[in-house]
Amino acid sequence: MTEERDDPTAACGPGEVSEGRSAASGSHSVPPSDPSSTSPGPAAAAPAAARILLGHGSGGKLYRDLVRDVFVKAFANPLLERLDDAVALAPSGRIAFTTDSHVVQPLVFPGGDIGRLSVAGTVNDLATAAARPLALAAAFIIEEGFAVDELEAICASMAATADEAGVPIVTGDTKVVERGACDGVYITTTGVGEIVVGHDLNAGAVRDGDAIVLSGGVGDHAVAVLAARGDFHFSADVCSDCAPLWGLVDTAVDAARSNGGEEALRFLRDPTRGGLTTVLAELAEEAKLGIEVEEAAIPVSPAVRSVCDLLGYDPLTLANEGKMVLVVAPEAADAVAAALRAHPLGRDAARVGVVTSAHPGRVALRTVYGTRRVLDMPVGELLPRIC
Amino acid sequence: MTEERDDPTAACGPGEVSEGRSAASGSHSVPPSDPSSTSPGPAAAAPAAARILLGHGSGGKLYRDLVRDVFVKAFANPLLERLDDAVALAPSGRIAFTTDSHVVQPLVFPGGDIGRLSVAGTVNDLATAAARPLALAAAFIIEEGFAVDELEAICASMAATADEAGVPIVTGDTKVVERGACDGVYITTTGVGEIVVGHDLNAGAVRDGDAIVLSGGVGDHAVAVLAARGDFHFSADVCSDCAPLWGLVDTAVDAARSNGGEEALRFLRDPTRGGLTTVLAELAEEAKLGIEVEEAAIPVSPAVRSVCDLLGYDPLTLANEGKMVLVVAPEAADAVAAALRAHPLGRDAARVGVVTSAHPGRVALRTVYGTRRVLDMPVGELLPRIC
Repeated sequence: MTEERDDPTAACGPGEVSEGRSAASGSHSVPPSDPSSTSPGPAAAAPAAARILLGHGSGGKLYRDLVRDVFVKAFANPLLERLDDAVALAPSGRIAFTTDSHVVQPLVFPGGDIGRLSVAGTVNDLATAAARPLALAAAFIIEEGFAVDELEAICASMAATADEAGVPIVTGDTKVVERGACDGVYITTTGVGEIVVGHDLNAGAVRDGDAIVLSGGVGDHAVAVLAARGDFHFSADVCSDCAPLWGLVDTAVDAARSNGGEEALRFLRDPTRGGLTTVLAELAEEAKLGIEVEEAAIPVSPAVRSVCDLLGYDPLTLANEGKMVLVVAPEAADAVAAALRAHPLGRDAARVGVVTSAHPGRVALRTVYGTRRVLDMPVGELLPRIC
Repeated sequence: MTEERDDPTAACGPGEVSEGRSAASGSHSVPPSDPSSTSPGPAAAAPAAARILLGHGSGGKLYRDLVRDVFVKAFANPLLERLDDAVALAPSGRIAFTTDSHVVQPLVFPGGDIGRLSVAGTVNDLATAAARPLALAAAFIIEEGFAVDELEAICASMAATADEAGVPIVTGDTKVVERGACDGVYITTTGVGEIVVGHDLNAGAVRDGDAIVLSGGVGDHAVAVLAARGDFHFSADVCSDCAPLWGLVDTAVDAARSNGGEEALRFLRDPTRGGLTTVLAELAEEAKLGIEVEEAAIPVSPAVRSVCDLLGYDPLTLANEGKMVLVVAPEAADAVAAALRAHPLGRDAARVGVVTSAHPGRVALRTVYGTRRVLDMPVGELLPRIC
């Protein structure tokens, strides 16, 4: 922990994706007296218009200008450029389909922003079905008066993250609501992916004796966003782990194939809202099996741990945006964990627990003190607007 | 036009979908002093909780209760019930992919509500690619304090509309934002559909001499929403045309197949924001061809016309949510129009214009007075929050 600093976008190591955007953070509210933002005239149609107007959501010329000058430019690809209402895709075999709205506050935080989050979140949900991302859709709800350059920065971040995941953003939508009817911008991303395995990855495939593998340390995303908010008057040297995990999951699929077959991979889930605890508690309930977890084996960075100690949070219930929980057949577990560790996004991957038939529906944590406690799903709100 | 009435959900003829929901309209703000809405306790986890809490967006128990008690119950189907992060689908052949956010205000209006709109809008966008809807995703952004029974009514309307279109809602997401950070509820629906034709329906397929067919009267949706808002202190006996059009489009595909082949169907677009004018102006620009339209052939109801006369709106620029513009090869145009008229949602279908190489990129309207004027895309905002 360090003293509070003003700029939540300060450099953050390899996780950082935002460039030259620190000035945009939190600057999207305009004085209500700004006359240019309430009277759309011919001049406002120019691409240089500094603020989003209600007219940008109209379906008319202003809308088309925004779509072409901001979205098509940022996400450049032939399918999007056609601007059809629906895009044609030609997948081979089974597809995965998933959607997520993103309402994170603040829009920019150490290690990421709402744009990176919206792409990574959807790619990661596809990855839980062992699906290579094929195409993304992005729907924006934007507050009147939002800065166009801030929107452009968010789109650039989305485009960079989509590139990282090897997926095009092929279609989208934009609605503009009056000042005060949303908080800057909300982004809903939906993904279609091609499933690369023949079996269904779900709780029903999990067996007594399977290993629980975690791809890295927990709590970074939640602590980074919390620190960026400044509500608790602290700053932490923590960056969000926000990253698209298809490459990492692809690596795990390959490792399973070489060590007993792809069916050795039973279940994948990214521990976002509700954290690792929620993923394991849901899994135990759905699989009607117990889970034993070793607290000492779960990576938690010293910075996350000290914030948790200070504020009374349990790092196992905090949201992550670049981690994966994998349930793997015992004979393949070490090979999968080793393959994850060889990937840049899985360096701290570890076997953290085991599935057991001993206490169906319950997750038991063996603490670092040697005691045991039950991990129960949190009831309500830990951190609102975390993703 | 009639005198103003207080209840925008009053009976509306065959178009009406809302039942017993008039009390919910506009009633979703709670006094800030309501203590139950800010302190989620064990009691709040009960399905009877009257208001949405921030904790309902947490990923924990409250979240799961909401998903099971409201969404899974309303949209009941085996894929959704699995509650996986991503859903597996097995389409045959090419798929269409489209997304739309819905921010309509008010949430309930004569002839529909945000739920019906969100499903119909996405089904109709898929239909523009001649795609049978295969699966929908629904992502909700909900304001803290929103009434749970109002949410249930919206979900019931979504479910009924999805049934009408023969499509399941298979996956979703819910985020809850603080009071004031959104306006009740925003719904982003994304659709995957199976394309039933072999060719691409787009502006590039349109030829000199093709017929412009419109599936019915224009302006009803915009006027119904405008009247429901009460801003202009009038009421109109107009219901939104909001409806899912896959069945209608399927009929048109069949008619084309029997009259020259499915390639006789060149282009489909639903005239939503920006209305018929915007669809035709965009088509002319993209196809690099001209369009001649007969004003007398375009159905406009007397009620819509009188509201437009009073307020100075052009019905051709008003949003529709249950209409389709079809460009059809001349030899198949009468058969397609006749097939549409035999469908309950296409009773007023008519040939309203023709594609011409005479004035590329321009749309000319021959008015009822025999004069001609150019139809230009509206620049900015006509009616915000219309869909």
